[in-house]
Amino acid sequence: MSAYTLADLVARFGGEVRGEPQTLVSQVASLASATADQIAFLSNLKYRDQLAASRAGALIVGATMADASTKPRIVAADPYVYFAKVSTLFNPPWRDEPGVQSGAVVHPSAQLGADVRIAPNAVIGRDVTIGARSVIGAGSVIGAGTVIGEDALIYANVTIYHGCVIGDRIILHSGCVIGADGFGLAQEAGRWIKIPQIGRVVIGDDVEVGANTTIDRGALDDTVIRDGVKLDNQIQVAHNVHIGEHTAIAACTGIAGSAHIGAHCTIGGAAMIFGHIDIADRVNISTNTLITKSLSKAATYTSALPFSEHSAWLKNAVQMRHLDSMAKRLSALEKQMDATEKKNE
Amino acid sequence: MSAYTLADLVARFGGEVRGEPQTLVSQVASLASATADQIAFLSNLKYRDQLAASRAGALIVGATMADASTKPRIVAADPYVYFAKVSTLFNPPWRDEPGVQSGAVVHPSAQLGADVRIAPNAVIGRDVTIGARSVIGAGSVIGAGTVIGEDALIYANVTIYHGCVIGDRIILHSGCVIGADGFGLAQEAGRWIKIPQIGRVVIGDDVEVGANTTIDRGALDDTVIRDGVKLDNQIQVAHNVHIGEHTAIAACTGIAGSAHIGAHCTIGGAAMIFGHIDIADRVNISTNTLITKSLSKAATYTSALPFSEHSAWLKNAVQMRHLDSMAKRLSALEKQMDATEKKNE
Amino acid sequence: MSAYTLADLVARFGGEVRGEPQTLVSQVASLASATADQIAFLSNLKYRDQLAASRAGALIVGATMADASTKPRIVAADPYVYFAKVSTLFNPPWRDEPGVQSGAVVHPSAQLGADVRIAPNAVIGRDVTIGARSVIGAGSVIGAGTVIGEDALIYANVTIYHGCVIGDRIILHSGCVIGADGFGLAQEAGRWIKIPQIGRVVIGDDVEVGANTTIDRGALDDTVIRDGVKLDNQIQVAHNVHIGEHTAIAACTGIAGSAHIGAHCTIGGAAMIFGHIDIADRVNISTNTLITKSLSKAATYTSALPFSEHSAWLKNAVQMRHLDSMAKRLSALEKQMDATEKKNE
Repeated sequence: MSAYTLADLVARFGGEVRGEPQTLVSQVASLASATADQIAFLSNLKYRDQLAASRAGALIVGATMADASTKPRIVAADPYVYFAKVSTLFNPPWRDEPGVQSGAVVHPSAQLGADVRIAPNAVIGRDVTIGARSVIGAGSVIGAGTVIGEDALIYANVTIYHGCVIGDRIILHSGCVIGADGFGLAQEAGRWIKIPQIGRVVIGDDVEVGANTTIDRGALDDTVIRDGVKLDNQIQVAHNVHIGEHTAIAACTGIAGSAHIGAHCTIGGAAMIFGHIDIADRVNISTNTLITKSLSKAATYTSALPFSEHSAWLKNAVQMRHLDSMAKRLSALEKQMDATEKKNE
Repeated sequence: MSAYTLADLVARFGGEVRGEPQTLVSQVASLASATADQIAFLSNLKYRDQLAASRAGALIVGATMADASTKPRIVAADPYVYFAKVSTLFNPPWRDEPGVQSGAVVHPSAQLGADVRIAPNAVIGRDVTIGARSVIGAGSVIGAGTVIGEDALIYANVTIYHGCVIGDRIILHSGCVIGADGFGLAQEAGRWIKIPQIGRVVIGDDVEVGANTTIDRGALDDTVIRDGVKLDNQIQVAHNVHIGEHTAIAACTGIAGSAHIGAHCTIGGAAMIFGHIDIADRVNISTNTLITKSLSKAATYTSALPFSEHSAWLKNAVQMRHLDSMAKRLSALEKQMDATEKKNE
Repeated sequence: MSAYTLADLVARFGGEVRGEPQTLVSQVASLASATADQIAFLSNLKYRDQLAASRAGALIVGATMADASTKPRIVAADPYVYFAKVSTLFNPPWRDEPGVQSGAVVHPSAQLGADVRIAPNAVIGRDVTIGARSVIGAGSVIGAGTVIGEDALIYANVTIYHGCVIGDRIILHSGCVIGADGFGLAQEAGRWIKIPQIGRVVIGDDVEVGANTTIDRGALDDTVIRDGVKLDNQIQVAHNVHIGEHTAIAACTGIAGSAHIGAHCTIGGAAMIFGHIDIADRVNISTNTLITKSLSKAATYTSALPFSEHSAWLKNAVQMRHLDSMAKRLSALEKQMDATEKKNE
């Protein structure tokens, strides 16, 4: 692991050093666990106690916290972004040796770019194309005709079905499934007839997909994930969904078929999005929120139910089934009150 | 890809041609993307604009939309079902060459029917039986003693535990796990003791299971999925659940242990079903709905919370914790109003 | 399968025999399916009808149900715990033959303890250590430097990333992913920058993890799962979560980053836990409940919305968006009523 001085870091990433610029650091760490050769970051003065106790050798701080410590420090416009860059410098993505490893099965028609790594027991199908320096993890399976860009990092036990298109610098975590059939069924005489799913999944550049997330192929046209989208774990993306550039979606969210989600949205964990709706750019959706219709305005939307102790919840929840009746009784009372007041005038 | 005339299609699937019956089509497509050699379908007049702009060579339409276009067209009783059949004709399930492929490990005691394909790096355990023409995808693992029917299509990286029984023409998508242990625990002195899960998973014919769906084996008796059931992605089916014939369940739904779900039900995405309850045939459960007790009547049930902009939600949500109090205050006011009105009489 | 008399069982596990102590049983079963050589358990008198019809050769019952049947029976303090122990005696975990099996790829630097089994097509990375008698299932992939304890049972198609630490007697079900990157992103000029996730996942002894559950590695410090924790299927555990000893969590639950959950908690299915909160020991969280802030008191917490038939739900749900207004109208009416009553005095 190489070490850098604060002066080195500022030369690369900007910001300003306070204290000794020759302070050497070789790793990032949290305030609580950092040692003298590590650099921590402080984003919020509520962590002042941790700061006081920290043995970090240096800090990254924002302008408003520039004097919160006398440790050697870098003052940065956005300390979290700065920290991300320093951490990426200290922790570059690991690349094992390239080449087709033991037990991997690569169809003779597949085209592998320079320095591609096919890890042990991965399976590469007919007519697959994989761009330079990409890594296919152990046990991963790439279906026939799929095209993967350059510098892709596909972890172990990922599955990509046939005919998909994946961009450059993509990261796919283990257990994610790209291109399975969408849930397309027609009903005839009480039985379900399968609709062949003949669209693809098309994923742009710089996309990250979390562990065990599923992105279904389109029914006729494609499911489309634009550049820079970040998907957490266990997200379900149904057929023909479109997700706009740089939208980030937290874990356990489900998006039903043909929903179109704008760019630069953030969607909280376990949100559910109805199918066939349009969501504008820069919409924020809260955790556990169900979106049932199109949203044309950039705002934050919520439908989570507040929790209580169970005994209190029991008493309140039963009234949810009487809200319509309560509303009518309230209106009736208002009318009676008006009448009473008129009579009393 | 072979081409068919509209006359050919009507000879196979019924319906009536309007316009040139010798119009050749070779693929299905959406109205928006269809080209002159493709056939699209129109199910709803709200897509009239797309219809006007469509370059499709032919259409499938319902009787009420028979004259919505002058393109060559097939008038069908149910255009979506008709479309499904035409699409299946144009897009038969892909079958790679049969045989045990490179890197697959098949236990010598396993019995493989005629023309079975064991894809690269799949693992077939002791005493497994696989019916004729079934496909086991790359990297999939079939546990000891499991029996799989004919014409099964098991995609890559599926796991089936030991001792399960799977019907004919089943489709299992990647990442699904059939037969893992149910969550059976007894508590003794603050520690959990595992209850061995010795039941099986028994799945009927013509079932489809989505990507990353999990179906646990029974604790003592079996977990049972009947013929024609369709499960979307990321569904959790706990031990000893029964799901009746031709029930369809959308993604992200969870079904707790020993719930019995009837036939011909539809269950929306992210629904949750309590354990040890019975749900009648032909029940519909809405998206995001929690079913906490048995349902004996075929109807639609819902418990989703409507969303609002966050600021409005904040004001309303806080009142959910006061509903019991509001109900009591409303009753008290009604009594006071009665008394006041009596006094004023 | 070996058989035991009731006298044998009582000698091993305590309790008291009523009826013939030499009654032989060789398997556990449910009341409904048990045969004459099987033992069932009765935990609740509501199953009295099943009991009357049961062909079980013997029973395990609690003290209050000691005389509910005249069958040979064992009276136990906790019949469910007793049943768990008897079932474990009859159904010990299956262990296939040890050794590195066909198609498995084991890095030469890996250290395998005595009688370890590496099943077909599993992949063991550089510098991995696996304790004695542990089983790595077919197609599972263990990342570089990970340490696994003794007597671990890791089923097929599990993925463990690099650098994790897993205790003794752990059970990991198929499709679970341990140690994928947490969802750590910083935003710069509308684009997301990835925060390298350099912590580990550290899992204690006697932990069970369900199928397709995901446990992310820490961002800087570790994600920690303590001894005896039981996780059901499709649970999402984000980076830097801590889960205390002997906590059990049902399927489909999500836990956001840096949440700390106490010991001996039970969390219902599809619960969602916010990040950066602390949950005390012995808290119970109901199914479908969203916990948005720290809980310092051991109690049961709930936020599930009661379901209704859809038509009734429509009428009530619309009022949820008017609760703030209803509360204000109620207060206004109360004031008017007070004024009216004063006037009438």
